[in-house]
Amino acid sequence: MTDTLTEATAAEGIADFVEFRMDGADRPLDALGEYEGALPLVVSNRPEWAGGTAGESERLETLAAAAAFDAVEMVDVELRTIRECEWLRDELRGHDVELIVSHYDRRETPQKSELNRIISECNTYGDVAKLVVFAEEKTDSLSLLQSFNAASERGVRVTGYALGDIGRHTRVIGVFYGASIAYAPVVSDERGPNDIDLRKLSNLLDWVASAR
Amino acid sequence: MTDTLTEATAAEGIADFVEFRMDGADRPLDALGEYEGALPLVVSNRPEWAGGTAGESERLETLAAAAAFDAVEMVDVELRTIRECEWLRDELRGHDVELIVSHYDRRETPQKSELNRIISECNTYGDVAKLVVFAEEKTDSLSLLQSFNAASERGVRVTGYALGDIGRHTRVIGVFYGASIAYAPVVSDERGPNDIDLRKLSNLLDWVASAR
Repeated sequence: MTDTLTEATAAEGIADFVEFRMDGADRPLDALGEYEGALPLVVSNRPEWAGGTAGESERLETLAAAAAFDAVEMVDVELRTIRECEWLRDELRGHDVELIVSHYDRRETPQKSELNRIISECNTYGDVAKLVVFAEEKTDSLSLLQSFNAASERGVRVTGYALGDIGRHTRVIGVFYGASIAYAPVVSDERGPNDIDLRKLSNLLDWVASAR
Repeated sequence: MTDTLTEATAAEGIADFVEFRMDGADRPLDALGEYEGALPLVVSNRPEWAGGTAGESERLETLAAAAAFDAVEMVDVELRTIRECEWLRDELRGHDVELIVSHYDRRETPQKSELNRIISECNTYGDVAKLVVFAEEKTDSLSLLQSFNAASERGVRVTGYALGDIGRHTRVIGVFYGASIAYAPVVSDERGPNDIDLRKLSNLLDWVASAR
């Protein structure tokens, strides 16, 4: 994950994709036009209620425009947004991109039945369901792993992790239980408190792959 | 884990204990007498139904005798054995050793309620409950992790792992969910198909510790 595409080359040879947080960049569409990196991109453009700054219509138009760039292979949109925005669904379908539909709960981990419901709803709109929750108890992390496992067993592509100290290991072990994408910051000094360094994540995922 | 105590020094600086499988040694009590290593020992002496070769009464007398050695800090006895053998319980209580009561299911993973029941029964006889099961499905590994978590939350010391490819990661991540001991072979060429190399396990546990 990165806010400036000039840093994206740091992930080459380690990551499979770079996520470009457009809401963290000054001129995100210019940055996409100038991008010459080897890695395909996932783009997201978070709304105000998730840390972004752009007005809502500008935000969505910018995100839709990003989908037209050759380097952009996946677009990440919040469940709340895609549920209400039919034109954006239509617009993204017209491009050769995959759609990650994401749901964040930064306060808690919902009950298992609710986790399953959210994943199913994300899946009705997109190609990959992304679920990020806050783990207060170890049972919360286990619930998330179970929901990943159940989804992947019924053929639903899923990703995400649990926030908080207790959730940190789910960024790695989630992949064993069916998460199809693992997340790390491209440059470590922009790490959140529970991010795992990209190279370390890569090494840990090698171990998980060998354990499968 | 090792069959010959002459190898135990290979674990110094990495492991906290060495488990000595007495049933794999020619003269296990002589080996204990000659042991001058730095690491304290866990001793086990598996019965015929778990891979050992000694007759039952000889096996238990040898195990009880091992508890008298200064280097021996823990004794591992099968639940099935300790349940039926009051004299062994009394004998071990007379020594300054901790008792690991272990249960192996090499065919399957019992239901969650049964896992909890087994752990509770192990705990009535010993200081640490050890549960090793065979994982056929990822949900089996999750059940084992849940039982570890539930046990540790009610103050019960527990250890173990799931056998099989699907269970392998529980040797590491089980520690996050409350397992108090992780197992690796002292010398890698005696590895079982799902063992994890001792040094690698140690590195992975460092990561788990940082995630707690």
